[in-house]
Amino acid sequence: MTIDYDRLLNWKFDDIEHAYTKNDTILYALGVGLGGDPLDERQLRFVYEENLQALPTMAIVLGSPGFWLKEQNTGVDWVRVLHGEQGLVLHRPLPPQGIAIGRMRVKEILDKGADKGALIYSEKELIDKASGETIATATSTTFARGDGGFGGPTGPSAKPHAIPDRNPDLTCDLTTLPQAALIYRLSGDLNPLHADPEVARKAGFDAPILHGLCTLGAAGHAILKTCCDYNPTRFKGLQLRFSAPVYPGETIRTEIWHDDGVVSFRSKVVERDVVVLNNGKAELE
Amino acid sequence: MTIDYDRLLNWKFDDIEHAYTKNDTILYALGVGLGGDPLDERQLRFVYEENLQALPTMAIVLGSPGFWLKEQNTGVDWVRVLHGEQGLVLHRPLPPQGIAIGRMRVKEILDKGADKGALIYSEKELIDKASGETIATATSTTFARGDGGFGGPTGPSAKPHAIPDRNPDLTCDLTTLPQAALIYRLSGDLNPLHADPEVARKAGFDAPILHGLCTLGAAGHAILKTCCDYNPTRFKGLQLRFSAPVYPGETIRTEIWHDDGVVSFRSKVVERDVVVLNNGKAELE
Repeated sequence: MTIDYDRLLNWKFDDIEHAYTKNDTILYALGVGLGGDPLDERQLRFVYEENLQALPTMAIVLGSPGFWLKEQNTGVDWVRVLHGEQGLVLHRPLPPQGIAIGRMRVKEILDKGADKGALIYSEKELIDKASGETIATATSTTFARGDGGFGGPTGPSAKPHAIPDRNPDLTCDLTTLPQAALIYRLSGDLNPLHADPEVARKAGFDAPILHGLCTLGAAGHAILKTCCDYNPTRFKGLQLRFSAPVYPGETIRTEIWHDDGVVSFRSKVVERDVVVLNNGKAELE
Repeated sequence: MTIDYDRLLNWKFDDIEHAYTKNDTILYALGVGLGGDPLDERQLRFVYEENLQALPTMAIVLGSPGFWLKEQNTGVDWVRVLHGEQGLVLHRPLPPQGIAIGRMRVKEILDKGADKGALIYSEKELIDKASGETIATATSTTFARGDGGFGGPTGPSAKPHAIPDRNPDLTCDLTTLPQAALIYRLSGDLNPLHADPEVARKAGFDAPILHGLCTLGAAGHAILKTCCDYNPTRFKGLQLRFSAPVYPGETIRTEIWHDDGVVSFRSKVVERDVVVLNNGKAELE
């Protein structure tokens, strides 16, 4: 298999119409870890249908084509791909229920060399079907480790956001549930790596790992809590790199820096002192 | 409002067709507390779609008419009713997905006097639509505190199962999640008493309480774990009395006695030393 640059760049995605209910919105928030303090009324608004608000990061999972690189003829060695980076820009608040349309495209493919791999940049526009307005733009970088040397452009690639070289201004610890991945996967990503100990072992892990996007959701929760007083309309977006997996049950510590309106963050697993999300930048109002 | 004995006894219930998916079966099990040890492969079979098994106690919530006593003309002062007892007999294993038909009827109504109230006994037959076979029979006793003295029969009423007067042969502690009620309610019982702190306070509780049927599910889990090695086909049924509510986050200790094939149990909240389920009897193979 080899990547055909033009074919992959012009990969045709059907629009994905995704009807979601209040229960779906609640289930996503519970999967990400909201509701752990059921007397906190600010948290309750994400997990209870009365005055329900959607978590902004849910815009990443709605209307997604799933693991499309596994489709025939992409030319990608999908077994060796990793989710490298994720970005999200909210153009308006995500409604707590409705019909969203996901419109995906490949933006660029970079060739980092035969020994390194390829970088596939994709973008999903999420549109509110009722109003026709764009709710969010989600960008994703896939690191295709087995697909370097296909003869594509080698750059330029965006530099990761630099984290300040000083102690964080804020930290927020959020403990994940042992069953976090089992709850989160009901929001749609049923990859057995996150549930089946046997599959996880074969992939080289001691146990099923948490979904990267669930870890991202926990970091989003930390920012929403510490910087936005749980007001989702103040959360305008984020970008980050995935650097290591989290095991369900571990504590995610999100470190946050404020510099002249720029909010930087990264997340660590406290128990193992490993950075799991890096080069984070959040857009807040 | 007064109970009209003949009218309530002959209350007409429509059959309730309840299509449920593997995800619904998983969500019920997660709500009841399964999956808290994601490396325990025996537990995993209730929360992962591969070789999925349904928890037997899910037969109680499938095909239920909901809070039908609130309907017009039942004559029941529904604000004052309590779920007093619950029973379940499994005739065959509950399929992990399918279409179940719930067929409800009122079996008897007893008048315990104007100062005490009425006891409403109902029974739901759960039928597998595909095969036409009866899966389970669920019996329920509602204590209508405001409806005594309506002039109905005063007995005979079944005696509660007697718990042995000695230390239990087995105990099983299961900690509930702080968000247990929030997860459990996605299986259908959206009574705000289990989510909204304001509603809970008005009802006289410090915080939202766990659903009685979720506590029952946790006791069922304890029996399945300690007496059936998580094999649901060995679990043939149970009966019990609800005696006090559980707050999400508390630890439920189920005490179990074995006597010549009779399995008795009761459940306590460890933190408050309060019996929450009493007079329990389980039918095991």
